Amino acid sequence: MTNFLEKYKTLSQKNDSLVCVGLDSEVSKLPNQSSVSVLDFNKAIIDATKDLVCAYKPNCAFYEAIGIDGYSALKETIEYIPNEIPVILDAKRGDIGNTSRQYAISCFDDLKADAVTLSPYMGFDTIEPFLDYADKTVFMLVKTSNQSSGDFQDLKLENGKKLFIQVAETIAKWQENSKSTIGIVVGATYPEDLREIRKVLPSAPILLPGLGKQGGDTEKSVKYGEGQGKAPLIVNSSRGIIFASNGADFANASREAAVLFKDNLNSYRN
Amino acid sequence: MTNFLEKYKTLSQKNDSLVCVGLDSEVSKLPNQSSVSVLDFNKAIIDATKDLVCAYKPNCAFYEAIGIDGYSALKETIEYIPNEIPVILDAKRGDIGNTSRQYAISCFDDLKADAVTLSPYMGFDTIEPFLDYADKTVFMLVKTSNQSSGDFQDLKLENGKKLFIQVAETIAKWQENSKSTIGIVVGATYPEDLREIRKVLPSAPILLPGLGKQGGDTEKSVKYGEGQGKAPLIVNSSRGIIFASNGADFANASREAAVLFKDNLNSYRN
Repeated sequence: MTNFLEKYKTLSQKNDSLVCVGLDSEVSKLPNQSSVSVLDFNKAIIDATKDLVCAYKPNCAFYEAIGIDGYSALKETIEYIPNEIPVILDAKRGDIGNTSRQYAISCFDDLKADAVTLSPYMGFDTIEPFLDYADKTVFMLVKTSNQSSGDFQDLKLENGKKLFIQVAETIAKWQENSKSTIGIVVGATYPEDLREIRKVLPSAPILLPGLGKQGGDTEKSVKYGEGQGKAPLIVNSSRGIIFASNGADFANASREAAVLFKDNLNSYRN
Repeated sequence: MTNFLEKYKTLSQKNDSLVCVGLDSEVSKLPNQSSVSVLDFNKAIIDATKDLVCAYKPNCAFYEAIGIDGYSALKETIEYIPNEIPVILDAKRGDIGNTSRQYAISCFDDLKADAVTLSPYMGFDTIEPFLDYADKTVFMLVKTSNQSSGDFQDLKLENGKKLFIQVAETIAKWQENSKSTIGIVVGATYPEDLREIRKVLPSAPILLPGLGKQGGDTEKSVKYGEGQGKAPLIVNSSRGIIFASNGADFANASREAAVLFKDNLNSYRN
């Protein structure tokens, strides 16, 4: 199976899980008494959690920060993830058309991710080359989980709508004209905004970061995120799972944290 | 000298040049009868143009598209560029604070660029870690050169301003509170917008892509870009210079194209 959305639906059902583990494997936070490499760390986390997740999400930044070895670790991590588990590359790329095509080649052909996160600021022609990959999914940033996300995303437009709502409505139009699936990123830290966005895009896959360390609201995230129609929802946790312990038991601890996270999410599902 | 802006001012004066050569070295466009590598291609272009430029600007996408070899080629290209010439890494990154810090490490500590382009969509905390590098410069996307840049950047706000103007005004406030230099990216394809933005940020360095293949207006770009106060202006050309010839004479051809581009820009300076 090569289609992102089919992979997600099958696995989410099989594992009864909305959990995406964010592989933000920052070197300085790896278990300190071991000499474990980023790749070995990721492999141990994947082995310990793969029956509990609906996706993995490595964020490029943590690999790029360690240079060429990081690039290898990222690529080999994606290769190591079992094919049935969709991989969302958290890249937040966005550039003009001919350049964006190169990023699409990097994300989908070279790194072989199933989906990628993109920034909407530069408009449609920055997304277009990614949509040529019909089996892949792009996740556009709509309302992000960080504290300053409102600096621009919350600006009120002449038509009375906030910018992030306008972005969501524009994505709905793009989706009408595309055979590829366009998903969105919405932070759990702004549950009322999530509710509004889900109304605009009732069936789009939502990637939801911001629970755990960032302090988002779990109940509202699940309720508003799945919406009336039980739409695709992918709830990310990074540090709370992968760095659950700093000791030799880090893999077991990540499993325990993933079980708790999964059960907690499921307790709020209809 | 390690400060981006000082490097730029010194070199721009010495070489009497506003020209930034964009090292968008797409593999499929390299001179076709040779077996030149991306790195060797870049070295030849740099050797042929280094006395004509005020900066080089490699765009990450073209290197990431060729995987691990591309990452090496990017790093070695930056190492090869003489220290007196500032390097702007065109990365258009933007993520939450702790992740953005990792991108800053990648761009500034690992790849050793002097400046980087960033996307504003996620707000201030995505830029903050980059500003901790006092000698470096960030270039925030304000109004980009691509056709669909208006999808969101041109949206009119409740206060009557377009989004990109609001972004420029917000950057002006950020600059008041930062010792680092915050530059901006404005496309040559929208000269009237450039004029408006220069009024909001009269002294910010402007990185200006969109001349050449994209069809921007040279006279207005120089006039509005430097503004009344001869503010720092960095005018990029990528394909028009580096792919000026597809033959064995590609390096000489790039030099000739760079001379023409430089002289054309200078003919419109006060």
